[in-house]
Amino acid sequence: MEMENLEEIREDLKERILTAVEKRDSKEIAEIFETIPNIDIAEAIEDEDDVKVLLYIFRVVNNEYAADFFAELTPEQQELIINAFSDKELVALLNELYADDITDTLQQLPANIVSRVLKACPKDMRNDVNRLLNYKDDTAGSIMTTEYIEMKENVTVKDAIATIREKGRDAETVYTIFVRDNRRTLTGTVDLDDLIFAKEDEVLSDIMNKDFVCCNVNDDQEDVAKMFKRYDLTALAVVNDENKIVGIITIDDIVDIIEEETSEDIARMANITDMSDPYLKTPIFKLVLKCVPWILILMVLQVFTTMILSGFEGEIAKFAILAVFTPLIMDAGGNSGGQTTTMIVRSLSLDEFDLRDYGRVAWKELRVAAIIGSIVAIFAFGWLMFEMSVGIVNTDSITKNIIDSGAQLTLIQAELLIAALVGGTLFVTMIISRLFGCSLPFLAKLIKLDPAVMCGPITTTVVDIVSLITYFLIWKEILNPLFFNIT
Amino acid sequence: MEMENLEEIREDLKERILTAVEKRDSKEIAEIFETIPNIDIAEAIEDEDDVKVLLYIFRVVNNEYAADFFAELTPEQQELIINAFSDKELVALLNELYADDITDTLQQLPANIVSRVLKACPKDMRNDVNRLLNYKDDTAGSIMTTEYIEMKENVTVKDAIATIREKGRDAETVYTIFVRDNRRTLTGTVDLDDLIFAKEDEVLSDIMNKDFVCCNVNDDQEDVAKMFKRYDLTALAVVNDENKIVGIITIDDIVDIIEEETSEDIARMANITDMSDPYLKTPIFKLVLKCVPWILILMVLQVFTTMILSGFEGEIAKFAILAVFTPLIMDAGGNSGGQTTTMIVRSLSLDEFDLRDYGRVAWKELRVAAIIGSIVAIFAFGWLMFEMSVGIVNTDSITKNIIDSGAQLTLIQAELLIAALVGGTLFVTMIISRLFGCSLPFLAKLIKLDPAVMCGPITTTVVDIVSLITYFLIWKEILNPLFFNIT
Repeated sequence: MEMENLEEIREDLKERILTAVEKRDSKEIAEIFETIPNIDIAEAIEDEDDVKVLLYIFRVVNNEYAADFFAELTPEQQELIINAFSDKELVALLNELYADDITDTLQQLPANIVSRVLKACPKDMRNDVNRLLNYKDDTAGSIMTTEYIEMKENVTVKDAIATIREKGRDAETVYTIFVRDNRRTLTGTVDLDDLIFAKEDEVLSDIMNKDFVCCNVNDDQEDVAKMFKRYDLTALAVVNDENKIVGIITIDDIVDIIEEETSEDIARMANITDMSDPYLKTPIFKLVLKCVPWILILMVLQVFTTMILSGFEGEIAKFAILAVFTPLIMDAGGNSGGQTTTMIVRSLSLDEFDLRDYGRVAWKELRVAAIIGSIVAIFAFGWLMFEMSVGIVNTDSITKNIIDSGAQLTLIQAELLIAALVGGTLFVTMIISRLFGCSLPFLAKLIKLDPAVMCGPITTTVVDIVSLITYFLIWKEILNPLFFNIT
Repeated sequence: MEMENLEEIREDLKERILTAVEKRDSKEIAEIFETIPNIDIAEAIEDEDDVKVLLYIFRVVNNEYAADFFAELTPEQQELIINAFSDKELVALLNELYADDITDTLQQLPANIVSRVLKACPKDMRNDVNRLLNYKDDTAGSIMTTEYIEMKENVTVKDAIATIREKGRDAETVYTIFVRDNRRTLTGTVDLDDLIFAKEDEVLSDIMNKDFVCCNVNDDQEDVAKMFKRYDLTALAVVNDENKIVGIITIDDIVDIIEEETSEDIARMANITDMSDPYLKTPIFKLVLKCVPWILILMVLQVFTTMILSGFEGEIAKFAILAVFTPLIMDAGGNSGGQTTTMIVRSLSLDEFDLRDYGRVAWKELRVAAIIGSIVAIFAFGWLMFEMSVGIVNTDSITKNIIDSGAQLTLIQAELLIAALVGGTLFVTMIISRLFGCSLPFLAKLIKLDPAVMCGPITTTVVDIVSLITYFLIWKEILNPLFFNIT
């Protein structure tokens, strides 16, 4: 299926479904569910709020599809269906759902519905769901499922396959079997294909992988995602502090988490507080709340640059062309600092290096900064000379200043001095932006803060302060006497 | 295994391996490979360039580990080993590797080694590898593998399991079996667990999923990754233009691609040309090349703001406090525009909406912008009054201007007017930044450009232009006459 014309396909599918429901054509509905993925069907009818239509579909389709389909519906639709279901139907649905899907559903439903669902849950599942609901957000516990297959070390391959045949349908995955010893400690994993390839009378301890990894129930979900990537896993055991297995996490949940973490990283870089909700479904006031705090915080952080500019207001009044180039210097510093912090934060978050590598990184950055500083300074020098010579920057005021003060300068000498001032300031700015920009994420990590959150704005603020002071001090102490003939 | 003390674990492991190699303790090496994941072993000895050490390890470990371990080594180490291997050993290694891993390896090796490896490849694998090497970068073809299990519709479950037992070890996954009709057209997929649950005499066409999806060999890898996420896949068939299956992609490769695409998105946001190489291994001149072009491009883009500021230089010279607040206005506009483009680009790339939703988005942005604009304007007004009243911003020059010009203004009236000027400009800036910032990604998508590349800088440039002109025009036309008593 092409992603391009998804919208059209969706429209056609919606019509096909609604026509079938209207005609009470159960065969057509069954055919649709046979040949089209559940999520495509769910999306096609995501605006459907007629409970009769939803119920008809549910009662007609095969049980195996119904549970998956239910998990893909919107919370509003799920609520409608649960309300309309008899207790018996609800129990049947819950039996087909995985504990982690029920938990996801419950987190979005109103309290009275939650209690009805929990009451309808089979007792052992109710315990599981209650446990899952209690784990802290973003931990391994909050994303794991309790439906996995666990066997003892001395089980034979033949018995293992028989057990899978019998109990496998309730498990979220049968592709990884978790093996434990008599004290319920996890000792290995067996992949389903290893079972298929093995001889029937071998025991699991002979064929299991002992080089497995597992995570703790309190581990951060981002670290769990890293383990899946690093070890090419499809399922991972979650253990408690006593090293007993309490659940598993499967790769399909991890793909969603990587997506979520990516959105989080991108949001932080753009100074948005959160980007997890789909844009069109986010209410306006929530969009405002996501964006406005950072604009205000950054405005307050500018108090330092405002103070510096205000302190040099006299110089600006005397020689206003100075103000023309301040945004150029501040933006170049902000960009350069942003580039550095982004690279370092990303490398830190991918575990490419750790705190002990700071020396190597700083030394590398210093050399990179020296080269970039030289290139940018020379380019800016040439670019400003060009701007002044073709009249993009008006130089009349410079001429007037020279004449008024009686300084011994030609216009071209004055232009060269101004271009050199900006170039020199940019050289300092590049060095500071890269050195400070690479150091701050390490510092944040050292004191166990998230480096992604504040490094960008703080770096920009510090670089702005240093570059503006450099710019105006070079002017005031070195160039000003030349321009105004002060000896 | 905790990710925190990975570095220490790595050091210990390295010592353990090197000691074992020195003592020629093959049992210890075998034990290490039994109990520790290959990638951890490979990383522990990633600096090892003594080919004798590497060869000893290779000759001692079990064949099943050797190939995986080889795939995790650095290109330099792979080259050393291939050079030192006899032809027979090379053939044995290649037989254990998957075609896509060989392809990955070859892409990083010098030409003479590539030809030796291809010569040593079994003939059918050589064809596969050559084909994989020919697909364009970042397409489904370039990441797929040719080792999958394909069966005809009329095969029985019993025969299918027997075939998997026989040929499954060569396939990259046996968890999804691809089913085709007599004309080699893909008609369905069977998951391994469905085979386990089915009766022995059923045929594949009875139990296969007909609601499968597949991708074309030329599809972009990012779209392929989207399909994995959407449909919770673990393997996906890749078909050619005649709808015949030519390869499969497995979820472990997709996780790497999501990672790669994330790095790409983040790099674009920070104006870095590319971030795919690990930082510490990137040469200095390459780091310079990644960063410097954008700093220069952005500097050139500033020609417009430079022109505007230069055009209003006379106003700045007369009333220098205007220059104190320009960075504040420009930064707020840049931040706000960046927030909007980031949200819209992200939503577009996640297919949350498409081009036809532009009207809804723009209308939503207009309302959001009106609210944010009001909040920011009022806050800035208050904040500036505070800055001026406590002396963060020096107001002596305002007083002097009023006295010199003999205007009928008190200092507090003047301050209120300046704060209102900045507040009003910010209101306009917020509206423009969000409206323009949300429109540009749609425009880019419409003309089939990548929205992530240029939208940030262009939005900032346009917003800077509009806000500076607004700021200075309001000043010149409305406030200037009041301050300088022009009637």
